[in-house]
This record gives sequence, C-alpha cells and structure tokens, in this order.
Amino acid sequence: MLALVLEKQHELSLREIDLPLDVGPTDVKIRIDTVGVCGSDVHYYTHGRIGPFVVNAPMVLGHEAAGTVIEVGGEVTALRIGDRVCMEPGIPDLSSRASKLGLYNIDPTVVFWATPPVHGVLTPEVVHPAAFTYKLADNVSFAEAAMVEPFAVGLQAAVKAKIQPGDVAVVTGAGPIGIMAALAMLAGGCSRVIVSDIVDEKLAIAARYPGVSTVNVRYARLADAIAKATDGWGADVVVEASGAPKAYGGIHDLIRPGGCLVLVGMPVTPVAIDVSSFQTKEIRIETVFRYANVFDRALAMIASGKVDLKPLISATFPFEQSIAAFERAAEGRPGDVKLQINL
Amino acid sequence: MLALVLEKQHELSLREIDLPLDVGPTDVKIRIDTVGVCGSDVHYYTHGRIGPFVVNAPMVLGHEAAGTVIEVGGEVTALRIGDRVCMEPGIPDLSSRASKLGLYNIDPTVVFWATPPVHGVLTPEVVHPAAFTYKLADNVSFAEAAMVEPFAVGLQAAVKAKIQPGDVAVVTGAGPIGIMAALAMLAGGCSRVIVSDIVDEKLAIAARYPGVSTVNVRYARLADAIAKATDGWGADVVVEASGAPKAYGGIHDLIRPGGCLVLVGMPVTPVAIDVSSFQTKEIRIETVFRYANVFDRALAMIASGKVDLKPLISATFPFEQSIAAFERAAEGRPGDVKLQINL
Amino acid sequence: MLALVLEKQHELSLREIDLPLDVGPTDVKIRIDTVGVCGSDVHYYTHGRIGPFVVNAPMVLGHEAAGTVIEVGGEVTALRIGDRVCMEPGIPDLSSRASKLGLYNIDPTVVFWATPPVHGVLTPEVVHPAAFTYKLADNVSFAEAAMVEPFAVGLQAAVKAKIQPGDVAVVTGAGPIGIMAALAMLAGGCSRVIVSDIVDEKLAIAARYPGVSTVNVRYARLADAIAKATDGWGADVVVEASGAPKAYGGIHDLIRPGGCLVLVGMPVTPVAIDVSSFQTKEIRIETVFRYANVFDRALAMIASGKVDLKPLISATFPFEQSIAAFERAAEGRPGDVKLQINL
Amino acid sequence: MLALVLEKQHELSLREIDLPLDVGPTDVKIRIDTVGVCGSDVHYYTHGRIGPFVVNAPMVLGHEAAGTVIEVGGEVTALRIGDRVCMEPGIPDLSSRASKLGLYNIDPTVVFWATPPVHGVLTPEVVHPAAFTYKLADNVSFAEAAMVEPFAVGLQAAVKAKIQPGDVAVVTGAGPIGIMAALAMLAGGCSRVIVSDIVDEKLAIAARYPGVSTVNVRYARLADAIAKATDGWGADVVVEASGAPKAYGGIHDLIRPGGCLVLVGMPVTPVAIDVSSFQTKEIRIETVFRYANVFDRALAMIASGKVDLKPLISATFPFEQSIAAFERAAEGRPGDVKLQINL
Repeated sequence: MLALVLEKQHELSLREIDLPLDVGPTDVKIRIDTVGVCGSDVHYYTHGRIGPFVVNAPMVLGHEAAGTVIEVGGEVTALRIGDRVCMEPGIPDLSSRASKLGLYNIDPTVVFWATPPVHGVLTPEVVHPAAFTYKLADNVSFAEAAMVEPFAVGLQAAVKAKIQPGDVAVVTGAGPIGIMAALAMLAGGCSRVIVSDIVDEKLAIAARYPGVSTVNVRYARLADAIAKATDGWGADVVVEASGAPKAYGGIHDLIRPGGCLVLVGMPVTPVAIDVSSFQTKEIRIETVFRYANVFDRALAMIASGKVDLKPLISATFPFEQSIAAFERAAEGRPGDVKLQINL
Repeated sequence: MLALVLEKQHELSLREIDLPLDVGPTDVKIRIDTVGVCGSDVHYYTHGRIGPFVVNAPMVLGHEAAGTVIEVGGEVTALRIGDRVCMEPGIPDLSSRASKLGLYNIDPTVVFWATPPVHGVLTPEVVHPAAFTYKLADNVSFAEAAMVEPFAVGLQAAVKAKIQPGDVAVVTGAGPIGIMAALAMLAGGCSRVIVSDIVDEKLAIAARYPGVSTVNVRYARLADAIAKATDGWGADVVVEASGAPKAYGGIHDLIRPGGCLVLVGMPVTPVAIDVSSFQTKEIRIETVFRYANVFDRALAMIASGKVDLKPLISATFPFEQSIAAFERAAEGRPGDVKLQINL
Repeated sequence: MLALVLEKQHELSLREIDLPLDVGPTDVKIRIDTVGVCGSDVHYYTHGRIGPFVVNAPMVLGHEAAGTVIEVGGEVTALRIGDRVCMEPGIPDLSSRASKLGLYNIDPTVVFWATPPVHGVLTPEVVHPAAFTYKLADNVSFAEAAMVEPFAVGLQAAVKAKIQPGDVAVVTGAGPIGIMAALAMLAGGCSRVIVSDIVDEKLAIAARYPGVSTVNVRYARLADAIAKATDGWGADVVVEASGAPKAYGGIHDLIRPGGCLVLVGMPVTPVAIDVSSFQTKEIRIETVFRYANVFDRALAMIASGKVDLKPLISATFPFEQSIAAFERAAEGRPGDVKLQINL
Repeated sequence: MLALVLEKQHELSLREIDLPLDVGPTDVKIRIDTVGVCGSDVHYYTHGRIGPFVVNAPMVLGHEAAGTVIEVGGEVTALRIGDRVCMEPGIPDLSSRASKLGLYNIDPTVVFWATPPVHGVLTPEVVHPAAFTYKLADNVSFAEAAMVEPFAVGLQAAVKAKIQPGDVAVVTGAGPIGIMAALAMLAGGCSRVIVSDIVDEKLAIAARYPGVSTVNVRYARLADAIAKATDGWGADVVVEASGAPKAYGGIHDLIRPGGCLVLVGMPVTPVAIDVSSFQTKEIRIETVFRYANVFDRALAMIASGKVDLKPLISATFPFEQSIAAFERAAEGRPGDVKLQINL
C-alpha cells in the first residue's frame, strides 16, 4: 500500500509499505479521501518526537481523515458499504475502567493513529472499528469531515467548560485549535468570544466570524478588553489554547468570580500558577486531552450550519504532493490554518 | 399616575391610580417605554384568576417592561440616570434560604409584578430595585428589551437542560414561550431544534429561523421526525412548552437514553406519567419556574446577534390603545406571537 | 451442570441443565459461593413474567452472586485464579452509543442474568466478562458481596441524587431496595434519612441503623416529620422506592425548593403527577435503571465499614434447599429483607 | 465593651473598646459563649498582616463563634431570644452579582470579622444579620458550634469536589483545616481518606477517626499508599490543605484519570504546575475560598452524629486568659488542633 511515511526526523517518503488490512467482525474498511495535516504530524517530521513519543521506526503520518466505507465486518449494523464517514483516530480498550466511565480518551491503553509506534492514515485504505467511524450527512463534504478531528478538541473544551447560554468566553491563542475552540464556544452557547494572539494574520482569520472579536496582546491589554465587554465582571470562561507559559501570567484576572479556565494548549514546561488568586474567585480549572463522545456532536453542528469550518482550509494538495504539503506546513505561514491532502 | 387597571374579570380601564413611587437607597425609578402583553395578563383579564391568584381588587397589569432610568437611590452605583434598561419583575427576599442558594426565583416570598395583589407596570413610571434592573447595550431597542422577560423563561429551560454543544432538541408547543425556548436552545448550543404544534400558522413563524424544523402533529408523527433526525437515537432534550396533558402521551419515546425532559408549560390538571418508561432510559426531568440569573445572559445574546426576537413582535399599540391591545390578545390570533404597548 | 431452574410459572426444579462454560479471552470462570434471592427472581416464579419479559422456556434463576475465580481468559490481567469476586449481572455492548457515554446500563442491547431468555447463576460455575467481575477485599465476605447487586441500585439512586454533604433525605418504601437506598444515601453524604412505609416490621429493621428515623404513614404524616426535621424547608432528596402509585400523592410537598426526587420503584401503571407543584419549586426528577460504575464503589464502602449490609441477611439456605428458599421468599414475611443461597 | 484587641503586631490587650451594637430590623444581638482561635487570628498577632490585609489600627480578634440570641430586629422571624446559635462571619452584599448567583463568599465586597479593618467577636456581645446566624440543635454544644466555621472550609472542599459515594480521597496536610477536610470528605460520602503530613503528632490525631489512614511523607511515598489502596487507579479526589508548594510536586500522580484536585491551602508564592500531566488525565481543579451555604449542612452533620469535632478541641481558656490562649496558639504545638476561649 502506498503511504506517506516518516522514515525518521526530517525524512519523508511517499512509498509502498506493508499495512494490516484485515477487517474484523466489528470493523470497517475505508477508502480514504481527505487527510488534514496536523501540527503533531509536522512536529514528528521536524523534531522526530513529541515528549515521550519518539519515532524509532518508519511511521505513516496522518490522523484527520474522511472517506468512504468499502467493506464492513460481519457484526457491523450501523454502517454500510458506500457510507461517507470520518474517523475518530484513538482506539481505546472499551472494557477499561476509564472507558466504562465514558472517559475513553483518557484510557491509558488507547492506541492513536500517527503516534509512535502506531501508523497513521495517509494511505488509500484503512481498517477501523465501526464504533469510532461516523457517518456524514449528505451536506457535509469530505474536506469538512476531515476537519472534525481538530474541531473536536475545541468542542471538548466547550463541553468541559459547561457553558451556560450567553457566556462570554476568551480564547488565548489563535492557532488552528484556538480558532476552532472559539467556534465551538460560540456554537456551544456563548454570546461572544474574544480571541487573543500576537500575530495579526491569525487574528484576522478569527475575526471573520460573527461573534468573534480579537485582541493583539502586543498592542493592547486583554484584561481591558474583557473588562469593557463584561462591565468589569470578567469572562465566564477562558480557554488557554496557546500552550505558551506567558499566557498564564495574570490569567486569573481575566475570569469572573466562579468562572472557569480550560487548559487546551500543552506547555512543554511547568507553569507558575498563583493559586491564591484563583482561590479568591473560586475559579474552576478544567483540562482537555483530545476528546470523547463529541464526533457525532461536531458532525451535527457542521450539518446544521452552526459551525462553518470551510474557511479554515487554507490549501489542498494531491496525495502525490504530500511531501510538499508537509514542507509548507513546516514553514508555519501565519495565514495558514489547515492544509489538507486529497487521496 | 395613569395606568392600565384590571378592575375585575372582563373589565379594563386606563385611568389614574395611586401607586407608590418612593425611591429607596438601593432602588431606581424608571420611565417606562415599552411593555409586552403576556398570556398571564390576558388570562387575568379573561378569567379573573390564575390558580390560587385571584383578582380581588383593581390591579395594574403588565410585567414585560423596558425604559429609562430617571432617578437613582443613594447607594446605587451600577446604574445612572439616562441608562436604558429592562427589569426582572420578581423581587425576592435576598436573605431567604432559596436566594442565598442562588435560587431566588423559587423563594416562596417573591413579589411579582401583575400577580394579585401586586401591581404591574403598564404605567409611565415605576420604582424597582437596582439589582433587578439591567442596562441595555446601545444596539438593543426598548422593544427587544421588553421581550427579555418571556425569552428568559425559554433561557431558563435551556440552562436547566444543561445543553451539551450539538444537542438535538425538541420543543412541544409553538406558542410564544415555545418559540422563545426553541431560540434559546439553539443559541444555547443545540445543533437543531424540532418544534411541534397543531397550528400551522404558529409553526410557520418558528420555521422562519434557521436551525428550526417543524412538525404539525395533526398530520405527522413527531417520534418519526426525531428518529429520522437522530438515526433512531432520540432527542437529547425535549422541552414541553404547551402545557397540554396530551403532549405527555409517549413523550419518553422522543428522548434518547440518558436524555432530559424540561417541563415549562403548566398543565392545569395532573398528568399521567409512565414512570417505568422514563426509568429504562434514565431520563432526567427538570422543571422551570420563571427564571433566575438569566436577564444579563439574554441581553448579551440579543446584543451579540445570537438571538433575534424582533420578528416575534406582531404589533405595537400606543398606551392610549392598551385596551384594544388586550382585546386583540384575547382573540388569540394564531399569527400573533407578541403584542407590545408603547408608553 | 446442576442449577435451580424455573421450568415455568410456579414450577422450580433443582436439576442438571446444559449451560455454556467456554471461557473467552476476556472472560473469567467463577465458582459460585453465594447467591441472593431477588424480588424479580421470585416474581418470575410466582407470575411467570415481569412486564414484557416472559418465561417461555426453562430458565436458571439468580443474579446476585459472589464466588471465586477458577479460570481466566488469555487477555485478562486484572484478575487471577483464586481471587474472591462478585459480578455485575448485566453485559452491555461496550461499543454501543450508550456505553461509550458511560451509560452502559441503559444500552438497549444489554444482556442480563435471569431475565428471559437469559440464564441466571444459581448453579456452581459461571463464565463472565472480567470487566464486570470485581475483586473483593479480604474483609468482605461472600455473603456481603452477594448483597452488592441490590445495594448497587440504592447507590445508583444516591449517585443520581447528586447528594451534597449534609443533605436530609427521605426514602418512601422500606423493602430491601428502600432500606439499601437509605443506607446508600447516608453513606453517600446525607446527614440523616427518614424512611416511610406502612409495615412496622420493615421500618423496625431500617430504624436499627444510626441516622435513620422512620414514619409509618398509616399513623403519622410524613410531611409533618420532614417539616419538623428541616424547620419547614423540606427534604433535599426524596427517593421513591415503593413503586406504589399512592406514594406519589403530595410527594412534591416533601421536597425543598430546588430539591430532587429520585424514582427507583417501578409502578406498574402510569402515575398522576401534579406538574405545576413540581415547577413552583423547580424540583428535579431523576430516574434509576439498575446501575453503572458503582460496583467498585459499593465494595469500597463495605470494605471500609461505611455500610454494613450483614444485618439485612435474614436467612441462608444450602443449595439443595433452594426451592425452600424461594417458597419462603414468596411468602413475603415482613421481617425478611434478604434470603441467600449457599452453593 | 470588653474585648480582646490586637493593638498592633505582637501586642494584645483585653480592654474596653467602643463597638457598634445597634440592632437593625434584620439583625440579631448575640451573647457570645465560645470563640475558637484561628490560625489567621494568630497570624495577625505574630505578623501584623495577611497578604494585602494589614493591621493599621486596633482590631478585635475572633471569628469562630457561638452564643445565645438576646435581642432580635423587628423583621426577624426565624430566630427568637434564647435561641442558641453560631454565626457565619462574612457579610456579603446580598444584591451583588455573585450573591444573586449563590456565590456570596466570592462577592468582592464581603465584610469579614477580624479581617482588617473589620472587628472580630472576642467580646461579650455582637450584632449580626439573622440570615447568617444559625440555630443549634439541642444536642450541639457551644464548643462544637464554634467549630463550625473552620469545619465549613473543609465542607466547602467536599462540596466543590462533587464527591461520588465511595470515592477514595487524599488530604495533603494534617493541620486543623486538613483534618476537618478529611472528616468532611468522609461524612460527605468518601469510603476512606488518606491524610499525609510530615509531623507524626498531627497524623496521630487524624488517625483516631475510623476511615482515616495516614502517611508521613518523610518516611513513605504517598503515591505508593494510594496505588495500594486503589489498585493503581489513583485517588478520586485530592484535597491540598497544606499550602506548601512542595505538596504540588507530582500531585497529579496521586489522582485517577478524570479525578479532581481541590485547592484549599493558600501558598504564599506561585507554584509550578505540570499542566500536560494534568491534561493527559483530564484532571479537574477546584479552588476554595471560605464557604457559602454550608453552615446549616455542617450543623446537621454534627447534630446527627455524622461528624464528631469534639476530639479536636485541645484546650479551652476563660475569657480573662485570652492572651494566654493566643500565646499558646502562637507556639504551634503539634498536638494542638483547636484552642477555644469561653466568655
């Protein structure tokens, strides 16, 4: 099977590789149509590792995928050949203690596409459990469906925030996840979202959406913008999506008494938290790791028009130009939100 | 002070009446601009009572109101003369056990406008606690602000439902509260809302909003529409807004396992509930009584454009024609959602 | 394999029957030690059916069981031969939509012991998924462990109630489930529990536990006892465990504003609910169907001494006298809480 | 009025001082019987300040108080002369945005006894709002009632944790608040609590309570004790009650996937948090500031025998020996939990 293989740090090949394609009784086989390029894919390419996950052997990249069911296992009833689908890339042990609680994303034994040593799906065909394969409505394109995976991270933040209708939210960081978190917060019930970053091009993309306002923290104080928007009360929810330790400085000042801070960005080093400032407001802090039980929600929101992710697709490459797609992604152009590959 | 007075059942006068206008230290005085006509106002007019509340003495009607602050008490800091505002019509004892818990709407001692023997606000000036008087954003009109009170009931339903982003909701009953509940559910995070009723004109008004689909249960089965919309899984939330005992028949069949039923409509007689059918799905039932802590949320949602209530204002009458407004309201024209009076 | 078989209504045999004993890779085989006699077992014996579940073929009874692991499947790591265990009797499809949400008890495809046509476990050996087999602490006896299943129903009610520490709870109905719900509420954080019934012998058993007080509603008004205990505020939680439609009369009067009603008892006919009385207090209603994710909690509470279920074991019969055990259970002696069979 | 006055850092007098004793219509006047000595009282004595709160003028100390109502305001209905009571020492603005939400403890305008410049209650008589004065059951002594205030902090932690029945909890820090938090967690539904500290005498006091086990982290690894108690799964809740930055090292390792960390201790400097370790387990962090709506719960738990605080009263001093009480408290004897003063 042809696949985009990360041979080792800095070395990509589009080549044949042996991949298991046995369809078990509860599996489906999918003909891949579109795969998005994720920051983590790029990071493995440029750094050869993410924290404890090290690329020690050739690994197929890609985990944001949509396609068409071409074979179904004998016990599968919810999907049929020809169904257009997208896939949740983590496969947990469904009988684990975490999974039984509904927290399958934090099952320590979860197997996740394109996380060493597990292969990803930048290859024409893949086998996946039907339980983690979601049917698309007719009006949802493969390109949109391949956006569900990153959007799901933002949606998980919105779920964890326990938004109350009309909440004012702030998202710090206007990268792809930050923008998608902002859209999830808005569609999830917030009356408005203020997005902050230090790059104008990124903020400009967020600002195109009604309900989003932006603050470049190089030129303006985020706390001032929030105070103005909330009569000095503070934001109901702040979603930290930059992963920058600097974003934690004074972050408690942005939040109202009894409000919530959702941590999505993953700082590479510990950050200093002024605990007593959080306490005097009894701020709740929620943390996000991928997502669980939100793919169907994301698809419902896209199908109904509550969320429009199409403007975030910056460019699409044919499969043969996959390496070029990764090279552009590695450039980190500020105007690029999501690059996709069409198989 | 001139006021619209319900003398007794079937008898309205627009006449002078003595009303207290002392401004206490934490009060404000408001020049009323717009008052909506509520079903309860009309019911006191046509029936002389609602349950245990009986009109035994002349009572000023009206409790959906917006206007301008013209005087502020000595301890008021959050409002100033000239502020455009709308008012929450219930005044609880803030030191009661319920109020201390944040449940001030169910404080048994709450005093509520236009609920016998308490006067309403269809009169040019009124005094109210600053704590229950909410400032309007510049882009919110008095007419919209006078819609906040009924919308708040729908919003309370949305809060109680604990919507998760992307939920599919159903609202049974397309009266004013049903339509506003549908809008609150959508703006509060639902991906789509199905509204049912038996009157096509009412459904047509709801159907104008994107995200709303409708079912006339005279011609079609609501359960079928939901099954189709949810792949047979059921609605995440059903809001019962009709108050019709008939709506309870088979209502558990509409809801997914682990879903929620929110009871907003008030049936005048007990209804039969098939408890075991609720149990096998572990359905949660929430009940709504007016609202608490949602006026500011409603105003934020209107100001940001998440909710547009203007299309629901069917006609506006000058103060002098208040009685005509009530007569039309009493007709119950199916195409009328909300009538307002301009003072 | 010898087993207690319900041949048809009114006819029990202790006889050989063919039962599958293949141990799959994620299964364990258990040597059964103790099985409790449940009201549902008895009801199948005396009535031949429970609602839609009809005994059309011989069925082994029993689903409250504890024993010792005697064989483990190849992929089982959490259990070993010799482990003392008790078993959760429902086996859901772990990949179903409900199970993925953590709501595996309301997965419509769940397979449950001793529910026609599925065999129960009144037989010396049984095979069960390791994921639903729970290891006992050394200080938990088999007899106690066989009480976990009915206690789990009470614990599910306590979980659903979302008890806040110090809550005052009421349990209507002092049958086995009512008493266990009372103990779960107490151990789960309530300061005190008032149990009501119409049979003094049952109430006397509940009253032996510190923190429990009782009301025989033949002689006294439950509402009065609650008003006295709560200074007129009402109970934070009422657990309806009788299943008697009569218990629903005025049940809203027992509950405080913002309180909760948990429905555990299953009335055989619809009950009349005075919706508006629930609304004026914004009472939340939760419903319970068996249990999910509480067996480990129950075992922790028994092991730590928070809950003592031993006094509720009224008599123990040897396996050979199983039919006598069922005959005594069918008598419904008021002083009997739980009869157990020792294999 | 005689009172224990902190003249300035290091200087206490028992002397006459002018204190306002006007009883407003919603107030009561209380004859003080017992006042506990709090760590904050002692800290003002030894340091002259706590963070931003500086003793710039003579201030009466004491805020853990119980006594007898000797006068009631004209609008007070819930209390009578002769009622035995304890008092919640913070007086919020009940019409503030936080108070209306039920979060009156984090109303920024709250006025709190013995927090400069507000006087405390180590004086024979005090006036207080009836709404924050709680009646004692006959079986609750003044000494126990004066323990409600510090216990309420522990109870707030238990409420914030959203304990599920049977949870395993850990409390880091065996000072007075840590021990009370442990008791609140146990009474609030936990099956067991592990308390850690570095002082054996403190741990010995905690260990007297059934359900509490202890770990001296000088000699043993807390993580090991938790792993053993939970089969490697981790604690459901960790309550950090030491305020020591060192306690934060590896604290995420103590908690199960999806578990909760409650921050009660107030570190004087920011602490380093390893965010990504919290994220991979999706740990929720709750913060505690004093308490709201728990005094009645605490009293119910004491009256019902769920919590026994009497063993924590280490010594009682007569009012004339108040200064000696403070001197002993300032010594910080490891065996002292709570010193009280009897007026």
